[in-house]
Amino acid sequence: MDVVRSNFVELLPKIRNDIKTCDFIAIDTELSGLGQNGNSFFDTLEERYLKIKNSISQYLLIQYGLSCFTKSSTDNSYSCASYNFYIFPYKVPGANNYKDKSFLCQPSALTFLSGHNFDFNKWIREGISYMNLEEEAHLTETLKNKNVSVNTTINDLDSTVRSLNESSSQLVNTNHVPDDQKDFIENFMSGLNDFFNDSTRTKWNVDPCSPYRRKLIFQSVASLNMSGLKLTSCQVTENSSERFISIEKVSAEQKAKEEAQLIDEAVGFTKVVQELIDCKKPIVGHNLLLDMAHTVHHFIGPLPDTLVDFKEMLSELCPYTYDTKLMAKFDSKLDSQFQNTALNDLYNVIQKAPFSNIKAKIINRSDSDEKTSFHNASYDSYITGLIFLNMLHYLSPKNQKSILDSSEFTKFRGKYNLTFSFDLAYLDINKDQKNQERSNVFHLTFPPTWTRSEIYDLLSPFKPGQIGWIDSTSALIALNDVNGVKDIDRVLTIQKNSSVCTIKSYRAFMDEKSPSQVPNSGKRKSNHFDGDKVVETSTPIVKKFKPTPVKPEIKMFAQESDWS
Amino acid sequence: MDVVRSNFVELLPKIRNDIKTCDFIAIDTELSGLGQNGNSFFDTLEERYLKIKNSISQYLLIQYGLSCFTKSSTDNSYSCASYNFYIFPYKVPGANNYKDKSFLCQPSALTFLSGHNFDFNKWIREGISYMNLEEEAHLTETLKNKNVSVNTTINDLDSTVRSLNESSSQLVNTNHVPDDQKDFIENFMSGLNDFFNDSTRTKWNVDPCSPYRRKLIFQSVASLNMSGLKLTSCQVTENSSERFISIEKVSAEQKAKEEAQLIDEAVGFTKVVQELIDCKKPIVGHNLLLDMAHTVHHFIGPLPDTLVDFKEMLSELCPYTYDTKLMAKFDSKLDSQFQNTALNDLYNVIQKAPFSNIKAKIINRSDSDEKTSFHNASYDSYITGLIFLNMLHYLSPKNQKSILDSSEFTKFRGKYNLTFSFDLAYLDINKDQKNQERSNVFHLTFPPTWTRSEIYDLLSPFKPGQIGWIDSTSALIALNDVNGVKDIDRVLTIQKNSSVCTIKSYRAFMDEKSPSQVPNSGKRKSNHFDGDKVVETSTPIVKKFKPTPVKPEIKMFAQESDWS
Repeated sequence: MDVVRSNFVELLPKIRNDIKTCDFIAIDTELSGLGQNGNSFFDTLEERYLKIKNSISQYLLIQYGLSCFTKSSTDNSYSCASYNFYIFPYKVPGANNYKDKSFLCQPSALTFLSGHNFDFNKWIREGISYMNLEEEAHLTETLKNKNVSVNTTINDLDSTVRSLNESSSQLVNTNHVPDDQKDFIENFMSGLNDFFNDSTRTKWNVDPCSPYRRKLIFQSVASLNMSGLKLTSCQVTENSSERFISIEKVSAEQKAKEEAQLIDEAVGFTKVVQELIDCKKPIVGHNLLLDMAHTVHHFIGPLPDTLVDFKEMLSELCPYTYDTKLMAKFDSKLDSQFQNTALNDLYNVIQKAPFSNIKAKIINRSDSDEKTSFHNASYDSYITGLIFLNMLHYLSPKNQKSILDSSEFTKFRGKYNLTFSFDLAYLDINKDQKNQERSNVFHLTFPPTWTRSEIYDLLSPFKPGQIGWIDSTSALIALNDVNGVKDIDRVLTIQKNSSVCTIKSYRAFMDEKSPSQVPNSGKRKSNHFDGDKVVETSTPIVKKFKPTPVKPEIKMFAQESDWS
Repeated sequence: MDVVRSNFVELLPKIRNDIKTCDFIAIDTELSGLGQNGNSFFDTLEERYLKIKNSISQYLLIQYGLSCFTKSSTDNSYSCASYNFYIFPYKVPGANNYKDKSFLCQPSALTFLSGHNFDFNKWIREGISYMNLEEEAHLTETLKNKNVSVNTTINDLDSTVRSLNESSSQLVNTNHVPDDQKDFIENFMSGLNDFFNDSTRTKWNVDPCSPYRRKLIFQSVASLNMSGLKLTSCQVTENSSERFISIEKVSAEQKAKEEAQLIDEAVGFTKVVQELIDCKKPIVGHNLLLDMAHTVHHFIGPLPDTLVDFKEMLSELCPYTYDTKLMAKFDSKLDSQFQNTALNDLYNVIQKAPFSNIKAKIINRSDSDEKTSFHNASYDSYITGLIFLNMLHYLSPKNQKSILDSSEFTKFRGKYNLTFSFDLAYLDINKDQKNQERSNVFHLTFPPTWTRSEIYDLLSPFKPGQIGWIDSTSALIALNDVNGVKDIDRVLTIQKNSSVCTIKSYRAFMDEKSPSQVPNSGKRKSNHFDGDKVVETSTPIVKKFKPTPVKPEIKMFAQESDWS
């Protein structure tokens, strides 16, 4: 079911309840770009983490799939409530902490999504707002201190943009109304006074005026610190660019109600993520690391500066994560079943023996679901959940409950699949992972004109393999015919015969790297909003969430031989 | 008329002819973001130029409106061919210099365009490709040296992405096929040999295989340097992720024809801009500077490092530009007619006396034009052209021709309107413009906790006006009650009474700025592609275009008193 701006607030209680009451949740995200061009096959875990942290802060999470799976209490079946959230950083009218921060899009990512029927018009027009925890706190605080509600609508953006371009309005302080506007503002203030003091009047439509004068009115009223006034910018007629300001008297109750609605709408999808984190249910994803990193960054707060803090943060926020791609590769019983580990490949396999092709009935189907397929976030999260369920039953066909505590499953918990790496299979948030030895990896420098061919020629006696470019004159390279000290010496002799190349072991290269290149200390930092200015703080943002409860159980039914 | 991927190559000759034969061309662009948050009211021309240069290189031009206006040779009427180009950096199959460079989007810009019915799905799915001149030269060069045509389709992106994620294929050198794939490749090569030497066979569909093996096949064939083979990746069935490679023998003629089509498609919209530049017709726009800067950056080459070089470049490429917004503000006869200078405001005014409401019949209407309105690039360019025409007739009702040479019009030529500036009204590409004196502007430093209020309070005796923030502890500020030396002295005494603030004149501040902060020398640089590596060159890219011919004329008819 698509969840968009127009049905989000209404659906939110139902979504929260589904998260609270289900057995496990499968997620999937679609992004405005992967931005992983800087990844190297020879990244250390710490280096890869910092690249991910840097990249995800620039791209957007544009669609979130959430599938809540529940075992029936009456029979051996599963049901699933599956939601497809369109997410866009739009300006909710009245949410005055909107930043309009530009974000990156990767052309191939947009083309890819477009090829899978992603609706970009719907995304921009109907995408749900979101903010991280500090932005939410800032919004709530600002609304509390604001006596006058000022509403602007999306339709007013046109004139606002013009206003910013054509006048100096952005910089006008209400204490310093320009001389040529003083009569106008004094006249308006006199009218406002009459309106405010006449108890028979509840609404006053000010005469239409220019965007610049509307801005002066908004600013002048705001500077009065009067409570109980609501200003709205309205079009004179539907297709006119002419606008007027409508001023209403509002009661404290009405103001509180409108503010609560505004907060729900502006905090938006973040409310769902907060529920997801609070529930401490198993969270399942396919190649889950990027999904989780984006989830934390956009809806909780900036990722910490170090991998160790990131691991700690994830294990506090979401201790029970399972990565179906990692599971398919990590477990020998599963690994032997799958040739490829792409989502559709796993799905094809689990529909046949020895898997049981267990299904889950989607209980909230809507018309928009008819056309969905792979790479729709909701569909992918649903398929991921089915794969997880079938793996569960395949690995422990006899277990009826608490299977996630069995050794078959604890070994998967908190392990995230890694791609594009020479020798790192996964990130384990529950364990300190040592750097790899990489005794057959070497660091090479060469003339800037060299290409891959010259490097392969130079090193051909040692069977060169993967290259990780560092810059135009250096790279890391794996040599397949170098094992042990003797071989390393053989390689190093190249240096003597060549005036243009140098070669050293991976370990020597890493030892020489300055610590600043691979930061691995320091505390998590986050930005705290203080008007125009940004103050750094070390707020322990994860503490806001509920502590981890006792381990959750996934209810299972006994494997039946005739299941098909 | 919308011009998209599917009709571009077919329409190109007609579009070129319309540009060649019309009297003047009005343009308008829609962008993925303005990115002008860094602009200051107190930017110098050079500073503003560098901000524009930096900003436009990150955002995309997503829609280009082009309206070619022609006076009828038989009666007193104008006609217009108006085109609306959707532009997107997609990967044209076979164009192997595709960079997939991420670009910025500004949420408010997307929301604004969405509110004016911009079709983002059409943009991504149907947007025309483009490249700058160096990329075009690189593509042509690469195709010339390539013996094997390799076709991949958008549908193959899915598996390519998977392939990059799941294998090390990207780094495999064909000279070093992994041991476990050697049998497979040897087997394939033997099959290729049979196919090539059997003159009765023209096409060979290789058995379906994994993305990784397809990549090995592509690489292996490419390394053979055989001419006359074309490889295409094909789906086994429409909804299957399984693919196979189809190999065809192609003649030299067929290869040349396919390459010419490929170049037209991949160079794309750049071909239109080349025609626009070659024709040396008057180019009209509304608030034209950003349109032209984007046009040069995306379709010609990177903007030069200095304003003086940019002016020279523009005056070589497009010597006859007219900015209707500048015209409406710059000429006293026009200025008195317009209260606002937004496009729709000008359009409202020119439809009434004393203007003549001259219209131009659109001769290439299509169904997609029915719903267009303001902020559709084609519509805006058409309206801009109408405004220009009516200004032309209003200023010189008696002139029948060569009006652009009259003093009424030469004064507008090459002047670009500037927005959001304290005292800079326009950029003049034909003139060296001195920096403003700004004797009533001052540079202030203050504690980081200060906001606008504290600054206004401190300076209240001098009637502070516009502020241009530099950072959290400094700003430029205009003081309205400071004229001449005596007043400056009065201001400077503030410094003595305050331990936390310093104040100095704008001139002193600018004199102290290091030259590196406002670069104003150095030659234009551009990037030259050389495989993975980038080599800097100083190619005089504008020289490629035709030299400026004799000044163009706009044909006009005599103003008739009964025109309405």
